[in-house]
Amino acid sequence: MNLTGHQLLGTSESAESNDSFFAYNPTLREEIDPAFHEASIHEIDTAVKLADTAFPIFRDLSPEKRAEFLLAITEEVQALGDALLERASVETAHPLPRCAAEWDRVITHTRQFAELIREGSWLDARIDLGNPDRKPLPKPDVRSLMEPMGPIAVFGASNFPIAISVLGTDTISAFAAGCPVIVKAHPAHPGTCELAARAILRAAARTGMPEGVFSLIQGRRNETSAYLVRHPSFEAVAFTGSLGGGRALFDIACSRPRPIPFYAEMGSVNPVFLLPGALNTRTAGIAQGFFAALTAGVGQFCTNPGLVLGIESPAWSDFQRLAGAAVSTYAPATMLHGGIHLAYTAGIEARRNTANLHLIAQSSTTPDPEKTEAGAYLFATTQQGLLADPTLLDELFGPTSTLVSCQNQGDFLAVAERLEGSLSATIHGTEEDLVEYRDLVDLLRRKVGRLIFNGYPVGLEICHSMHHGGPYPATTISSATSIGTRAIQRFVRPICYQDWPDAQLPEALKNGNPRNLFRLVNGKYSRESLS
Amino acid sequence: MNLTGHQLLGTSESAESNDSFFAYNPTLREEIDPAFHEASIHEIDTAVKLADTAFPIFRDLSPEKRAEFLLAITEEVQALGDALLERASVETAHPLPRCAAEWDRVITHTRQFAELIREGSWLDARIDLGNPDRKPLPKPDVRSLMEPMGPIAVFGASNFPIAISVLGTDTISAFAAGCPVIVKAHPAHPGTCELAARAILRAAARTGMPEGVFSLIQGRRNETSAYLVRHPSFEAVAFTGSLGGGRALFDIACSRPRPIPFYAEMGSVNPVFLLPGALNTRTAGIAQGFFAALTAGVGQFCTNPGLVLGIESPAWSDFQRLAGAAVSTYAPATMLHGGIHLAYTAGIEARRNTANLHLIAQSSTTPDPEKTEAGAYLFATTQQGLLADPTLLDELFGPTSTLVSCQNQGDFLAVAERLEGSLSATIHGTEEDLVEYRDLVDLLRRKVGRLIFNGYPVGLEICHSMHHGGPYPATTISSATSIGTRAIQRFVRPICYQDWPDAQLPEALKNGNPRNLFRLVNGKYSRESLS
Repeated sequence: MNLTGHQLLGTSESAESNDSFFAYNPTLREEIDPAFHEASIHEIDTAVKLADTAFPIFRDLSPEKRAEFLLAITEEVQALGDALLERASVETAHPLPRCAAEWDRVITHTRQFAELIREGSWLDARIDLGNPDRKPLPKPDVRSLMEPMGPIAVFGASNFPIAISVLGTDTISAFAAGCPVIVKAHPAHPGTCELAARAILRAAARTGMPEGVFSLIQGRRNETSAYLVRHPSFEAVAFTGSLGGGRALFDIACSRPRPIPFYAEMGSVNPVFLLPGALNTRTAGIAQGFFAALTAGVGQFCTNPGLVLGIESPAWSDFQRLAGAAVSTYAPATMLHGGIHLAYTAGIEARRNTANLHLIAQSSTTPDPEKTEAGAYLFATTQQGLLADPTLLDELFGPTSTLVSCQNQGDFLAVAERLEGSLSATIHGTEEDLVEYRDLVDLLRRKVGRLIFNGYPVGLEICHSMHHGGPYPATTISSATSIGTRAIQRFVRPICYQDWPDAQLPEALKNGNPRNLFRLVNGKYSRESLS
Repeated sequence: MNLTGHQLLGTSESAESNDSFFAYNPTLREEIDPAFHEASIHEIDTAVKLADTAFPIFRDLSPEKRAEFLLAITEEVQALGDALLERASVETAHPLPRCAAEWDRVITHTRQFAELIREGSWLDARIDLGNPDRKPLPKPDVRSLMEPMGPIAVFGASNFPIAISVLGTDTISAFAAGCPVIVKAHPAHPGTCELAARAILRAAARTGMPEGVFSLIQGRRNETSAYLVRHPSFEAVAFTGSLGGGRALFDIACSRPRPIPFYAEMGSVNPVFLLPGALNTRTAGIAQGFFAALTAGVGQFCTNPGLVLGIESPAWSDFQRLAGAAVSTYAPATMLHGGIHLAYTAGIEARRNTANLHLIAQSSTTPDPEKTEAGAYLFATTQQGLLADPTLLDELFGPTSTLVSCQNQGDFLAVAERLEGSLSATIHGTEEDLVEYRDLVDLLRRKVGRLIFNGYPVGLEICHSMHHGGPYPATTISSATSIGTRAIQRFVRPICYQDWPDAQLPEALKNGNPRNLFRLVNGKYSRESLS
């Protein structure tokens, strides 16, 4: 599987720029061949123009055809075999089994969207029948459904080189909606991106998708990303990454002459509340589960549990001791890239020097900076100590967490009140605890996108009900999810047909209901066909 | 019905500021008592604080209770009787029957949202059942539904003082979702706003809604609006008004430390395409219908048909002649306020001096500026003439339109390609025309929110299928509608419950399905209850 480092502009390749960069092996701290060419403005324009031309064709393909395309993607991705896993592993330091798990996720979510296209509920088909005899004015026949917006730009995440990158839910849900996609490859795993992109392009070719339905552009410069987001032909952007990068591009998207939605998932602090009923009976189990969640993927999950709150008690002391003991056993491991490593080590250093924060445990082996390694660190403070320094409520990306000692539910509420938006909050407790801590739950519903009971936030289930989103700064648009089938809703908008002849209506709105959809007809859901 | 001109902060009143202004009768060009006080920062803070406190209570009321509140609003609005219509008529120069029609719309949409709350499909309840035996990892039980976002700020429109103002779909759909609302009264009809607000507050009081579920603040200064949009406690803003005002506030909403969605509906040019099959056979009828749509409400509709395109032919010449003749009969009428009048007269003056544009008809009676009157104006140009001057594609708010002579579908496409986003596009034709002009329809689907066949864009049907939105600059967020039941989706976001105990789940997600909702269970819609 030869990589070229070129822009993949529909079915053509291009490498106009002499400005190039290399992928980087963070374990060996060395560059990997080949060179990747920074996309030129002309190359981006070409990709966008192709997408623009592809859009009306792709939009109006039958659901069956678009589903075929997605299933062909799963086959082409499977056909990539070890080459994909190996390249991803080298570029990100993720072990091969982790890469394989990401690969499985891609197959799962892509199949799920193929099924969704066929099933059709995402179209939200609605019909209000007309009545020419209504007084004082005749009632028009009004029907509407969701149609794709147009070309979408996607920026993948560094931490999921396969599952939340070129082949992530962003790309696949946009395809499912009927939107062409241009992915800006992540400069920390450009080779993985190229392999994945070629699989998509092969699938597009063999299922007869229009030229330009997909392009990949390479780049590591902010100007390249900014140019993309400013491009007038895009209708929306999906992004997974840091708050800094996400907010900068969000600001550009909003300040365009014609603003477009910028869906950014930017991670969060994911608080965990340990309620007495659980803490007293499952101390060791919770400590073990927490440690596993904290250190999974070298702590590089946007759902990493960054704060753990408990009420002072012997069980809470035990939990702290057990979690600390586990953390000290953690063998330092290589982070995704130097930038994340630098931010993590600087953040740990700052927290070590924070007056109210006590380092209670750390990896007993010293991390090797020559291997971009991070150790695990566990800090402790009190509710008062935490709230005295607002920076402690910020996410620090990596295997670290802060344990917060509280006196009562009032302390929990005081912290929850001050939390910014988060992707998730977790509660360990008994059902009786949940009743007693109802105020906490009710407050967390304002703050997060997902509430987890007696579990851990990492390891998102891929399903229709999943919501991977939350109030800012977890995301820029809290009603949007970047995982699960609701993700398709980001790339569609309603189109309403008034008094439109049946023969010319989209299939989903025709009287005969040929797709056998559940439709909202005069305010009632039914599958009936209309005469 | 005495007006005080005070801020209505929940159940309290306040008039801290000496900075006051008067409503204005545009027909008599004189101020109307009483004085309205510009809201102070402290008053806005008070309203927002009340809304913030009301939110969790209001959010968790039973659907039945919230529906009761909405139905009580319809009763209180009906009880306002002629006082509401008379005040609205005086403040806006709308004739009483028009005000009564708006009143009917409020009753209709408010009842529709009461029904929607009870019916519950807007909750989008989804359940993916867990499986503890799944390998390699147990499958969690994941459930999600829509929950209200929090306090919402609403800016009503000047042109619908009753139906798209305090009592508009923005307020009512936010209430339906479970969001407290603060309305910034429109300074051109502050008295109508106060009357409507008092009706809402009476309804809130007698149905036991929490204090702060609704407040009204008065103001005419940009700073007051800007302060409101910047207030950290709001979760979203809904706005209907001009592009200038909407974009300025949108920019503020996006540049907040914590950005929030700003849903603005800002009007559009609403092109009308006359295809040969219709034009040749229904020339007079179309001209008559067009004239009625053009001049309804003194042309002050955001769906006003601002461009009409036809292919040169004897029928098109007839249409131009007939439309012109009708326009010359139009008796000038008073516009909503001096600002709109000034913009309209300046816009007409500019178009009269535009080289490629020919004034082909105008009201034969001269409008009286002392009565803020506008006459109707009809301009004509060619496709080339239109595209030579991009300002001709901009909306000019009032009873004016431009007739564009084209040679063929290619000319239609050239114009459509250059159109900015519009709320609607209208096609008059036969079914055969629609087939022949498929390229035009397919292009318009990228440009507008609603496609109308053989009808007129003004006079929106209030129903589940209606979409009153469209690409920028018609709106800031093209997937959102400000009319119809989908409007509720602007104020909700998904909350996901993972492995949550059944007893503590929201009713809509409980195994027993006590609300008998259609739910997406493991990917299939059903009303079944789960064991």
